Amino acid sequence: MPDHAPPDVDVPSLTALLDGTYAEIRDLTRKRLVEHAQVLTDAREMPREEFRERVLQVVQELASTGQTGMGFPVQYGGGGDIGASIAAFETMAFGDLSVLVKVGVQFGLFGGAILQLGTKKHHDAYLERLVRAELLGCFAMTETGHGSNVQALGTVARYDVQTGEFVITTPDTISRKDYIGNAAAHAQVAVVFAQLVVEEESQGVHAFVVPIRDDEGRLLPGVRVEDDGRKIGLNGVDNGRIWFDEVRVPRDNLLNRYADVTEDGAYESTIDNPDRRFFTMLGTLVQGRVCVGGAGIYASKVALAIAVRYALQRRQFGSPGGPEELLLDYGLHQRRLFVPLARTYALHFAQEVLAGQLHAVFSATQEVDEHTRRALESRAAGTKALGTWHASTTIQECREACGGAGYLSANRFDALRADTDVFTTFEGDNHILLQLVAKGLLTDYSSSFGELDQLGMVRFVAGLAVETVIERTAVHKVLERIKDVLPGGDDDWDQEAGINDPAYQLAMFRWREEHMLAGVARRLKRGMDSGMEPAEVFSRCQGHVIGAARAHVERLVLEAFTDRTAAMPEGANKAALNLLCDLFALSTIEAERAWWMEHGRLSSARAKAITREVDELCRRIRPIAQDLVDAFGVPAEMQAAEMLADETTAV
Amino acid sequence: MPDHAPPDVDVPSLTALLDGTYAEIRDLTRKRLVEHAQVLTDAREMPREEFRERVLQVVQELASTGQTGMGFPVQYGGGGDIGASIAAFETMAFGDLSVLVKVGVQFGLFGGAILQLGTKKHHDAYLERLVRAELLGCFAMTETGHGSNVQALGTVARYDVQTGEFVITTPDTISRKDYIGNAAAHAQVAVVFAQLVVEEESQGVHAFVVPIRDDEGRLLPGVRVEDDGRKIGLNGVDNGRIWFDEVRVPRDNLLNRYADVTEDGAYESTIDNPDRRFFTMLGTLVQGRVCVGGAGIYASKVALAIAVRYALQRRQFGSPGGPEELLLDYGLHQRRLFVPLARTYALHFAQEVLAGQLHAVFSATQEVDEHTRRALESRAAGTKALGTWHASTTIQECREACGGAGYLSANRFDALRADTDVFTTFEGDNHILLQLVAKGLLTDYSSSFGELDQLGMVRFVAGLAVETVIERTAVHKVLERIKDVLPGGDDDWDQEAGINDPAYQLAMFRWREEHMLAGVARRLKRGMDSGMEPAEVFSRCQGHVIGAARAHVERLVLEAFTDRTAAMPEGANKAALNLLCDLFALSTIEAERAWWMEHGRLSSARAKAITREVDELCRRIRPIAQDLVDAFGVPAEMQAAEMLADETTAV
Repeated sequence: MPDHAPPDVDVPSLTALLDGTYAEIRDLTRKRLVEHAQVLTDAREMPREEFRERVLQVVQELASTGQTGMGFPVQYGGGGDIGASIAAFETMAFGDLSVLVKVGVQFGLFGGAILQLGTKKHHDAYLERLVRAELLGCFAMTETGHGSNVQALGTVARYDVQTGEFVITTPDTISRKDYIGNAAAHAQVAVVFAQLVVEEESQGVHAFVVPIRDDEGRLLPGVRVEDDGRKIGLNGVDNGRIWFDEVRVPRDNLLNRYADVTEDGAYESTIDNPDRRFFTMLGTLVQGRVCVGGAGIYASKVALAIAVRYALQRRQFGSPGGPEELLLDYGLHQRRLFVPLARTYALHFAQEVLAGQLHAVFSATQEVDEHTRRALESRAAGTKALGTWHASTTIQECREACGGAGYLSANRFDALRADTDVFTTFEGDNHILLQLVAKGLLTDYSSSFGELDQLGMVRFVAGLAVETVIERTAVHKVLERIKDVLPGGDDDWDQEAGINDPAYQLAMFRWREEHMLAGVARRLKRGMDSGMEPAEVFSRCQGHVIGAARAHVERLVLEAFTDRTAAMPEGANKAALNLLCDLFALSTIEAERAWWMEHGRLSSARAKAITREVDELCRRIRPIAQDLVDAFGVPAEMQAAEMLADETTAV
Repeated sequence: MPDHAPPDVDVPSLTALLDGTYAEIRDLTRKRLVEHAQVLTDAREMPREEFRERVLQVVQELASTGQTGMGFPVQYGGGGDIGASIAAFETMAFGDLSVLVKVGVQFGLFGGAILQLGTKKHHDAYLERLVRAELLGCFAMTETGHGSNVQALGTVARYDVQTGEFVITTPDTISRKDYIGNAAAHAQVAVVFAQLVVEEESQGVHAFVVPIRDDEGRLLPGVRVEDDGRKIGLNGVDNGRIWFDEVRVPRDNLLNRYADVTEDGAYESTIDNPDRRFFTMLGTLVQGRVCVGGAGIYASKVALAIAVRYALQRRQFGSPGGPEELLLDYGLHQRRLFVPLARTYALHFAQEVLAGQLHAVFSATQEVDEHTRRALESRAAGTKALGTWHASTTIQECREACGGAGYLSANRFDALRADTDVFTTFEGDNHILLQLVAKGLLTDYSSSFGELDQLGMVRFVAGLAVETVIERTAVHKVLERIKDVLPGGDDDWDQEAGINDPAYQLAMFRWREEHMLAGVARRLKRGMDSGMEPAEVFSRCQGHVIGAARAHVERLVLEAFTDRTAAMPEGANKAALNLLCDLFALSTIEAERAWWMEHGRLSSARAKAITREVDELCRRIRPIAQDLVDAFGVPAEMQAAEMLADETTAV
């Protein structure tokens, strides 16, 4: 047994490192959460209707403090700092998530659409009031039968040249707007995504501002709304369905940053290609995905903080006569909590990089090139997918690790799990998002076809020689990077380096990504060459496509973690993060070790050594586990877990 | 591409096969569920207090029809058929699970304890009224600080020889009874598990009948109850905490089937060894585990039936111009639903074998030997663990596969997921249960030490030569069975047989089980030999111990499936089940393929072939998927999924 003294973690300094650039904003947010801690209890005890009003009240109070408007321009009462708004949103995920999601609906989706898709006339008309939460709105994109495939929406907005109005219509039941937050009760205005028809010609999906309720909250003529009813979670948010029956809005209500209709009915756009136009419009809404992924990571921190603390109080079994053993002294319990703990740290740093890139792109004074924007959107999609799946599995594991106590709502896992459950679905279904990532990699972020058009991607890839695909794609860059870390570029790099060598771990991740991407390209091409329909080719390769995307995103996550720790000064905190980084890298390789073994990059002996090292890393993290969750800075009130009260579990 | 015509499944006949011996009971139960279908809506809409009363009402109505008393002796108003009672319980899992769990608490736990641990005087005093649900009771075993380790319970029952009474006391907060169903509101009587102290000497845990409420529902003196409050699910069940402050009950209230205290304070038992005595008492309660595992499997069927139907209605993406593709035509969607579908069938047949064995042992007219009882308990523990984890993951996957629609409570996944979540914890935490399975295998079901005493097991195994362990344990039987199916016994069996050959699949499962068990034995021995403390040895091997148990149970599951299909007449239904059996076997090998590769039993080429075959099996199951879920016979009312209404999703 190696004898390692555990690092003497400096918790406040580790918290400062995690809080990063926006430490002050995060601390302010923590204070706000503590002020509103009662809402966590209300979520459990209030009837649904009452709780919705309570959540609205909290959102309005937060808005009045500036907490929710940091990303809007200063001249409209905002904070003018996108990075700050993301940091504030992420940190709010420590608290009640209905509040968080209602904030996301009002300021992120509704406000974001007005800001990003509208022009000055819309900004002047709406932004100030919406930032103050005086004007409540909803984001009416998804329909019952059209979710991920936004380009296939059924709602129609026909331009009536006689009156200079758009006429919004729901043609059938599957085209009713559905799952729309703020729709069932509170929204006065909807941003409606609909097929624009001008002079009988369809111009694709565009967004329109459509008033749906008057000042007294009564629905306007032609608008029908139905409550979506109880949901698994987020019952403080009023999701609903909307039907439009020939609802007329003035021509000015088209959000016309990228396209417009002239008074006499001519369609105009600065972007000729309709797919690219649509892609560009959607792309401006990327912040929502960044926020949801971050929220998933922060919600995971709450669950881990509670479960680790419980495991350091609760005892079970042991030698006769002596005290029972603490749960956290069991090897399996360590694995159940520390592997997700390490991944939470890893995702935290990946999210930090992503949020920084988003801030840079959206705060740039010069036009940012399209390739950079597409790469950002891809990274946002991938991080959202991994961050939200991570939340689901981590919170669930923490619940189970706390046994019966974990099942009681007072102990927080109920709300954490139920409220985050839909994170894997909304703002883009995770599988679809990973397909988007793969498409970006395989086409080098071309936007010459629709955002989510997988069959277009199949045809595109199949139309090139495989070598060309690999050259044209991000793949060869990855290969070069393997050589960066292991300059020998030797075929035996996988045998020579130690498993705890970050260069080895990175090379393993990169090699997998490169190999999977090239493999997908070959399979798509082979499928098309064999005469199969593109839909069939895609269906057969779908798991591979998604696997390649996941490998890519995990490589980005590992790089973010490795870069961050490498930049730290030597000391206990660096040593602690290195343990976590090793655990993240090696547990990820362990989970997927069959793949590397199948592809000749991992011997049985080395695979077993990795499993042993994962166990050993868990044992080394055990003495500092409390510090590592304390560093998240989850306010005690947000951990308000009854079972952590000393008298209930301490022996 | 191989060209296989899909089997023309005979759905009613497949349902009959699945319903098995108790088809009539299951059909009767379906009728009852449909009569009470309104309770599914009530679960979503009623406030918690009101819903609890509603559930009680349903349970009492069911009791009046005989639905819930099938397992009790005829002379007390029961049906006298244990197998029937299990079939009825399993099938009830199609409906509201608060009703199911309240039935389990009243008739399984409370009633089962009176029946199995009590003697004629207790049966005469309680059974008839409890079978009619006139006398409501609870099963007060678990305490806040003592769950899985029942032998360490803190509640004390001291015999007062002066008055001939037991005095029940809760010594500290961690020893309050907790999570007790029926305790918060409805139970008049509790079966309390407590440390029996006679003449200052502790005799270990025994069960006592303790009245806690009078006929008007008021708590009796010395009894304090607290509501456990809102839970993740099962909010129709009134779970609570109980404290006892010197509560006195007559000597007759000791459930004295296995041990008694004479009037003048002498402790007597037919079983000398206290560990064995305790083990025997607990063993009689095995039916609860069998029922919970079965309920998990049946709840999974509901989720799969809904998700498959939705995937055959909902379209997304596709070639421009044409209709979009059905979700179920995507390769990944097929994998997401069909792999759990195959496993559901597999677990169904394993559960059928288990329920049959339980019925045989508990209906036997002669005394059943202890080894058979221990093996049954082990099988029940393992099947419960796999069945309930399967429910959690399957229902979750189905929810995600239905996207936003899956998040709405009306579409059933909410209740299914939330209500089954605690199945992995109650009636024995799944990890602990698998440890019990491993202990049984490694000690050949010895009961000479406590049921869950892992350290005793470590010492026992370490005290033998490894060869002895392997000889004494079930391991060598497994090895013989490999030879049974592959008589050559050749070292190259893993290369020669086709991957769809059941003999190959069985041999793979058996070889893994044997190798893992022998490996655990070696590691435990080596750990002890190196001078480590037993607790440390166990902590380090824990994952391996649990993995070995899981391998064992999965082998039993595959054997049950293979045996069942082998016995079927040739035809379409057999062909369909063979597809599912192959998919279960190969997807299980695929998921764990790294292990076989590490141990030299699976080549890279064969591993890849298995992955391709899993994909191919999914494509072949696609045309019969609707039939395969229809065969479960989930009443349409139990699938009451709003999203399946034709007008909402059909194009």
